[in-house]
Amino acid sequence: MCGIVGHVSAGPVNQQVYDSLLLVQHRGQDSTGIATADGRTLHQSKKSGQVREAYRTRDMRELLGNIGLGHVRYATKGHATNLDEAQPFYVNAPYGIVLVHNGNLTNTRELTQQMRERDFRHLNSSSDTELLLNVLASSLQDNVGNRHLDADAIFEAVTKVHSRIRGAYGVIALIAGHGLLAFRDPLGIRPLVLGRRQVTEEIAEAARTYRETHGLSDELPEQEWVVASESLVLEAGGYEVVREIAPGEAVFIDEAGRMQSQQCATDTSLVPCAFEYVYLARPDSVMNGISVYEARLRMGEKLAQTVRKHVPDDDFDVVMPIPDSARPAALQVAHTLGKEYREGFYKNRYVGRTFIMPGQEVRQKSVRQKLNAMRSEFEGKKVLIIDDSIVRGTTSKQIVEMAYEAGAVKVAFASAAPPVRYPHVYGINMPNAEELVAHNRSVEDVRKILGCDHLVYLGVEDMAEAIMADTDWDGLEMSCFTGEYVTGDVTEEYLEFVAGDQES
Amino acid sequence: MCGIVGHVSAGPVNQQVYDSLLLVQHRGQDSTGIATADGRTLHQSKKSGQVREAYRTRDMRELLGNIGLGHVRYATKGHATNLDEAQPFYVNAPYGIVLVHNGNLTNTRELTQQMRERDFRHLNSSSDTELLLNVLASSLQDNVGNRHLDADAIFEAVTKVHSRIRGAYGVIALIAGHGLLAFRDPLGIRPLVLGRRQVTEEIAEAARTYRETHGLSDELPEQEWVVASESLVLEAGGYEVVREIAPGEAVFIDEAGRMQSQQCATDTSLVPCAFEYVYLARPDSVMNGISVYEARLRMGEKLAQTVRKHVPDDDFDVVMPIPDSARPAALQVAHTLGKEYREGFYKNRYVGRTFIMPGQEVRQKSVRQKLNAMRSEFEGKKVLIIDDSIVRGTTSKQIVEMAYEAGAVKVAFASAAPPVRYPHVYGINMPNAEELVAHNRSVEDVRKILGCDHLVYLGVEDMAEAIMADTDWDGLEMSCFTGEYVTGDVTEEYLEFVAGDQES
Amino acid sequence: MCGIVGHVSAGPVNQQVYDSLLLVQHRGQDSTGIATADGRTLHQSKKSGQVREAYRTRDMRELLGNIGLGHVRYATKGHATNLDEAQPFYVNAPYGIVLVHNGNLTNTRELTQQMRERDFRHLNSSSDTELLLNVLASSLQDNVGNRHLDADAIFEAVTKVHSRIRGAYGVIALIAGHGLLAFRDPLGIRPLVLGRRQVTEEIAEAARTYRETHGLSDELPEQEWVVASESLVLEAGGYEVVREIAPGEAVFIDEAGRMQSQQCATDTSLVPCAFEYVYLARPDSVMNGISVYEARLRMGEKLAQTVRKHVPDDDFDVVMPIPDSARPAALQVAHTLGKEYREGFYKNRYVGRTFIMPGQEVRQKSVRQKLNAMRSEFEGKKVLIIDDSIVRGTTSKQIVEMAYEAGAVKVAFASAAPPVRYPHVYGINMPNAEELVAHNRSVEDVRKILGCDHLVYLGVEDMAEAIMADTDWDGLEMSCFTGEYVTGDVTEEYLEFVAGDQES
Amino acid sequence: MCGIVGHVSAGPVNQQVYDSLLLVQHRGQDSTGIATADGRTLHQSKKSGQVREAYRTRDMRELLGNIGLGHVRYATKGHATNLDEAQPFYVNAPYGIVLVHNGNLTNTRELTQQMRERDFRHLNSSSDTELLLNVLASSLQDNVGNRHLDADAIFEAVTKVHSRIRGAYGVIALIAGHGLLAFRDPLGIRPLVLGRRQVTEEIAEAARTYRETHGLSDELPEQEWVVASESLVLEAGGYEVVREIAPGEAVFIDEAGRMQSQQCATDTSLVPCAFEYVYLARPDSVMNGISVYEARLRMGEKLAQTVRKHVPDDDFDVVMPIPDSARPAALQVAHTLGKEYREGFYKNRYVGRTFIMPGQEVRQKSVRQKLNAMRSEFEGKKVLIIDDSIVRGTTSKQIVEMAYEAGAVKVAFASAAPPVRYPHVYGINMPNAEELVAHNRSVEDVRKILGCDHLVYLGVEDMAEAIMADTDWDGLEMSCFTGEYVTGDVTEEYLEFVAGDQES
Repeated sequence: MCGIVGHVSAGPVNQQVYDSLLLVQHRGQDSTGIATADGRTLHQSKKSGQVREAYRTRDMRELLGNIGLGHVRYATKGHATNLDEAQPFYVNAPYGIVLVHNGNLTNTRELTQQMRERDFRHLNSSSDTELLLNVLASSLQDNVGNRHLDADAIFEAVTKVHSRIRGAYGVIALIAGHGLLAFRDPLGIRPLVLGRRQVTEEIAEAARTYRETHGLSDELPEQEWVVASESLVLEAGGYEVVREIAPGEAVFIDEAGRMQSQQCATDTSLVPCAFEYVYLARPDSVMNGISVYEARLRMGEKLAQTVRKHVPDDDFDVVMPIPDSARPAALQVAHTLGKEYREGFYKNRYVGRTFIMPGQEVRQKSVRQKLNAMRSEFEGKKVLIIDDSIVRGTTSKQIVEMAYEAGAVKVAFASAAPPVRYPHVYGINMPNAEELVAHNRSVEDVRKILGCDHLVYLGVEDMAEAIMADTDWDGLEMSCFTGEYVTGDVTEEYLEFVAGDQES
Repeated sequence: MCGIVGHVSAGPVNQQVYDSLLLVQHRGQDSTGIATADGRTLHQSKKSGQVREAYRTRDMRELLGNIGLGHVRYATKGHATNLDEAQPFYVNAPYGIVLVHNGNLTNTRELTQQMRERDFRHLNSSSDTELLLNVLASSLQDNVGNRHLDADAIFEAVTKVHSRIRGAYGVIALIAGHGLLAFRDPLGIRPLVLGRRQVTEEIAEAARTYRETHGLSDELPEQEWVVASESLVLEAGGYEVVREIAPGEAVFIDEAGRMQSQQCATDTSLVPCAFEYVYLARPDSVMNGISVYEARLRMGEKLAQTVRKHVPDDDFDVVMPIPDSARPAALQVAHTLGKEYREGFYKNRYVGRTFIMPGQEVRQKSVRQKLNAMRSEFEGKKVLIIDDSIVRGTTSKQIVEMAYEAGAVKVAFASAAPPVRYPHVYGINMPNAEELVAHNRSVEDVRKILGCDHLVYLGVEDMAEAIMADTDWDGLEMSCFTGEYVTGDVTEEYLEFVAGDQES
Repeated sequence: MCGIVGHVSAGPVNQQVYDSLLLVQHRGQDSTGIATADGRTLHQSKKSGQVREAYRTRDMRELLGNIGLGHVRYATKGHATNLDEAQPFYVNAPYGIVLVHNGNLTNTRELTQQMRERDFRHLNSSSDTELLLNVLASSLQDNVGNRHLDADAIFEAVTKVHSRIRGAYGVIALIAGHGLLAFRDPLGIRPLVLGRRQVTEEIAEAARTYRETHGLSDELPEQEWVVASESLVLEAGGYEVVREIAPGEAVFIDEAGRMQSQQCATDTSLVPCAFEYVYLARPDSVMNGISVYEARLRMGEKLAQTVRKHVPDDDFDVVMPIPDSARPAALQVAHTLGKEYREGFYKNRYVGRTFIMPGQEVRQKSVRQKLNAMRSEFEGKKVLIIDDSIVRGTTSKQIVEMAYEAGAVKVAFASAAPPVRYPHVYGINMPNAEELVAHNRSVEDVRKILGCDHLVYLGVEDMAEAIMADTDWDGLEMSCFTGEYVTGDVTEEYLEFVAGDQES
Repeated sequence: MCGIVGHVSAGPVNQQVYDSLLLVQHRGQDSTGIATADGRTLHQSKKSGQVREAYRTRDMRELLGNIGLGHVRYATKGHATNLDEAQPFYVNAPYGIVLVHNGNLTNTRELTQQMRERDFRHLNSSSDTELLLNVLASSLQDNVGNRHLDADAIFEAVTKVHSRIRGAYGVIALIAGHGLLAFRDPLGIRPLVLGRRQVTEEIAEAARTYRETHGLSDELPEQEWVVASESLVLEAGGYEVVREIAPGEAVFIDEAGRMQSQQCATDTSLVPCAFEYVYLARPDSVMNGISVYEARLRMGEKLAQTVRKHVPDDDFDVVMPIPDSARPAALQVAHTLGKEYREGFYKNRYVGRTFIMPGQEVRQKSVRQKLNAMRSEFEGKKVLIIDDSIVRGTTSKQIVEMAYEAGAVKVAFASAAPPVRYPHVYGINMPNAEELVAHNRSVEDVRKILGCDHLVYLGVEDMAEAIMADTDWDGLEMSCFTGEYVTGDVTEEYLEFVAGDQES
């Protein structure tokens, strides 16, 4: 899981990229990177951990320039702090390009071989982002010397990229001395939204001083541009939403702030990832025309109806969410069923590490480090607990135990998403199939494992309706619930291959 | 504002202190410190920032021993990262003592002079904690050579400390080679709770290996002890609550895990700080017999009645909290008034810094970095917004603006606490009187400043009833609402003195 | 000024590169970098400061692989700690190449323009090393796809490089998945020496374990190879000197440890840099067949004869060197003239910084921080002080003052090199012409400035004879003494251009 | 081995302490500490490693005030980077004192017990410096409350200290709000010298600005004072030598720069440590009236006569020193014997670490990392190598091997000090007796171990005469050569006790 942002500003861009990264921080907390272009010179800083702790004044001071991009990342196990795998990636030929990417490619093995044997480009990591960057670089290189690098040449290269790579990807790249490029996979699985704001006189004044000092052209752009994984970045930054970048589309904003765009793929359709709505995105974002918050309310509504069918009304008095992501669904379940809404779990926001001292063994991390049950809300009560989804089931099992220990006499558990039964190969980090509690298990089997009195899942159709509402999307990417992979190239053999190594 | 914890364990104490500090992290995020005793040797680590980022494996590896204490701190402006002011403080004579403190002394000027001119002890900071430690050390020193240092001698020294210092204080100290001491101010203004857990066979086994390696006595204590600012630390750590330490009482736990206690003050009474219930404490803590969560529900209940009196029922459709602390009150207001409860504000949990680049000016930090209003919850609606309290008023004013901008047609604002009109001198960080929006202003004056349609405050009596319920407390420390200071030594001249410098 | 080393080892190469860098540390102390190849994967670490303080265990742990190179650098003023300018530099296309370089290119302006307008390669610094690397990469790229990258293809690329670049350069490059390349400028201005050692059974055993763990081919090379700026690296590491790399020659050692070499330039000749012998190289190195130590002894011999001509024998009793580099010459002067050799100056090896506190001004650094005069060696004596050369003259002036202050009755000063009158553009850091004390000044003028009783310089012819002895070199690069630049492209206009910016 | 400095300045003292520490850096490179007093507030910074790398601008910025002291330290094996053992040490009662110490106490076991059982002061390390500080604090505490702390009270306390502690010590302490104290052991074993310089108008001007900003009295002292381990610190800093502090004497300089002194011990005599002259001190220092450089020349003179007796004149052609400390002696040997002086060994000044990678074993550090033999100086020659002393013998053995390998046909080895046969307990770090090559061995036995043709040691009497010359000292501390310990309390049992743990 990753969050990406890109900015073309009138003045210095470093603080803007930083502020935007904080707003997508929920999409990944393991590492972060920022790159900026100060005329032809690129500056870059990659760090472990969260944005707030990662960058210091001295880092920001070196991130000069008015065009920039940034990245936050949730790393797969064991690679958490390996900065060699951290984005952005850089190539110096042709032109000098840095690139960030949210998503996952599914034909990395073929591409890696091509790079080595045909393109003779060096890959220094196992990251599919480095691979994607080199495919782009290679496509741009084909043109080198033939003609000037303009938007058309760039769009031509993106077209070649689309034809070579498979998978889900939102991409932002910075081409030194030229501008900012953004494009999205032909199925629109991963999100990417474009915004702009007018260069007010206040912004202009600060920008003029900066541009003069840094030898930038004194012609101010009329607008400042932003590209980001989520629309809330635009709203919080005072940008107007221009539109979501269309599946297969590429957008290029040059150094003077002129924006051009072009459809670079054939056979496009819009099939967004369901998990953004279920769990990943912030509720105050709007994606592909659908408010995440309202989608969650609707999932709550549908879930309420399912609960009504499966759980006797006497078997629960109160409805309570697992904070924070299940709150909208739970509110709607309570409201729809006319039950009292209570907050019985308190989320501990300051979770630390377990230090392994010499001679000690690793201790199991407990959900109790993250959640605390408030006894007065459970004592003698029958509770319906709502969570956004159930993946491994270990957390849910512990939550059920905590509820009983806090005095609940009955515990019903409801998931605002369907059972997660298959791997996710399009950029959401998930365990292998064997670790999914619902993999090859019936709902009743899972209920026994969790140990609750009732277990309710939202149905697949209900979820799809709740998320898609009255949009004209071509479909919904929900392979982890159904096992149907929309890109058509995901075989059993491939799933076994990625079982050992999954990357956002 | 500070949080403190102390542990006497069977085995290594470092991870326990660390885990407990995370659980009081909400009481202060600017700096933190841990000290441990490994037999007679003391180890200490002080850091800026939050616990999670502060300590690394190499720090923990040096914090050897089975007795320890820790501290988290919210620093006053300008001192945020000055580790010279950070707790714990240490003196090497007599015995070697490290000490942490939550609260604030009100006779620091007299004490500082006495230290210099009578006790000849060196104070290297302006911290009242260093002062308090030296008063304790000086009282212990009077006995040096006369008799063995036992619990009685320690309680005698605490009695002297009570007689010399004024103010509010929860204190935990570690006396090298002896044990852990905790005591609380004679009015019980600041909280401090004592817990224990049995040394299970699992704990005992790990402890035995550790004690053998580190040359500790092989006689295992029967119980492990914890002292902390809040009871949730005990609950999360699997400790049973023994009791709250009584006002004026001192508790001493020796190296062998034997606990002794004694009342060390005369004229004690129980007058807890109201602000713990209003804002500071975690809802899942119980303080002085009162659940913080339930006190907040009751404040919501009383606030609902006040709202009913002052705001026409037609003037609001939905009730929404400012997350997170106002949530219980808002839930109860909605429930009591039969209005719909909605969450229209989303809290951005990843707030960063504004970097000042050479030549730039400081920008105003905006509440928009912390909160986002979800348009669909405001568009065309009449909203009642609940916050836990109103201090400066600047945040509330911006929240009201955000609600209108998001499309609200009417905005009522209610504070679950009375108007804050006077400085707080007992350990809650607050601005000077002049910066308090309600200082010398009527509610209507404040409403005009905030710009909302209605403004409702909970009454002082209502708050007192909601917090105290049916307890037999002697009173409630609520000077910041009433201007009546319970220690009797707070004069106008003193308030002017502290106007420039207020400390936890 | 820079020092470079490259290694192809049987086992892990990191410690070998580190050890070798320490041995060329005298050639530059401002920054350092190491890169290694672990199969196809490259690892790199760049640091400010000296080698000993720069690398920690965790850095070394990441420098995996059996092929590696390293760099130490004396930075020009103001860029000392800018790691963006630090070597090695890396390009990922084609093949993945890292490169280090000792020397200076003289046609950087033309090359930079070509890179931008013809090769479309991005330069992210002002370093001529990055430029050189990109010229090499561009030459290799021309072949990509046409045929397999073998030694012949590499030598062809080096031939193109020689034809495009002008100046002085010793270069070591690592081509990922292929091997180590080294080449030297067609005039042999900068030094580069090739060594090898047999893979003993002890080395082989350690190497086998390593290769097995790291997935390297289990076929051990028969020899380990080293390339370095100075021969003392070979001697100290137990390597046999194979030969100095010839002017214009390229040497390529593949992953299996097979060495191939080829002359890649036409019109080569051997015109080594005089300053290596005068000052830069370690006395225990042999360069181009000449022992640096013995060259310095011969310069002392010639200087003695000059002194005899110009200084009355009665005007000095003792001869003393400025430690450390003038010691061999001084010993020889004393011996030849039958005067007593004494060490009157003590060198302070621990020189620190002058911290600028807020509100303070920069203080002039004094030679007294570096040297101390021992009074007993000066009191009432007539001294002849020998230094290796006189550049700015400020140090020499202060030394003369110190000698008088310590009680000397007469002070003669002799430089073991001729007057430095012109800029050095081939990789020795020197001030601009205006700052050279001998620029446009007679020896008598300089004597007056230094304030000594006698001033003697070694003659240009004498220096040339002393250094070249009976070799068959084609000449000696001594432009800073004569103003005659051997590459033929150094114009007045160029000298003005570099006056502002001179690099390693 | 340690170096200590203390300063009372007119203006800011931080840079002065830093500069002085660099000048005693040769006395210890493992850790360093600085403390300063800014009025009553103390500031302190302790670091691992050398002074130059240890302190950064931000450290210096916090070392405010005009009185300060500093320390450099050579740590015993295994404690090298343990900052808990690093100086200065601090106690806050009474008054606030920080202290640094050069030397070693011999009754630490009794004192430690007294501290615990009688003085009830906490010792948090095994450092004898912390112990010494607490003895001083305890002595000062006895007076607390009885009368004002003036120079007399301080001298009284030092008198008590002398009566309680045994061993060798030079001490500098800073008493907060009072001034700088320095004292020396009653036998004057360790050195300590006092200097002053006039406050020139230039110094005064800078100082006035500083004092005004920092709230210091505007009455400038007439003189600035320095106390240091070696006189070269004074000379390099432009201070005049006032005198060496006499054995048993204490000097106190108050905040106004007034100096007072008093003899605080009875039964004093002057018995300086021989090893300062043999090895530790810088040649440009004068100690106890004797120039270290000249003492070394005289040792060379005496050594020449011994060589003449034991080595046939035909058996060596040239004399060469092991750089740097043996250079004066070797020059004198050559001169006296009329042999040629040559420098055949080149010292590698940049010695690094051997990194232990996972799975690797520790490699033996070789003298070859430190020294390189120049073949041309050895080939076919008969050499006499001079070193300052022979301790373990391992280095000497390798040097002899190197000389033969470089082509020497005969190798004679001479030590400018007598055989080291016994432990040093007065502050010079040395191995245990068993590791000394000359312990229980004849000179011929040692010669066989070293493998040279001839081995010559300077005689004990010769060394004493060479060092003491025509002074009126009471003796020379040379126990490591003779086994006679001047403090009279060093028993066999004590030597066994310290065998495991020796500290400077």
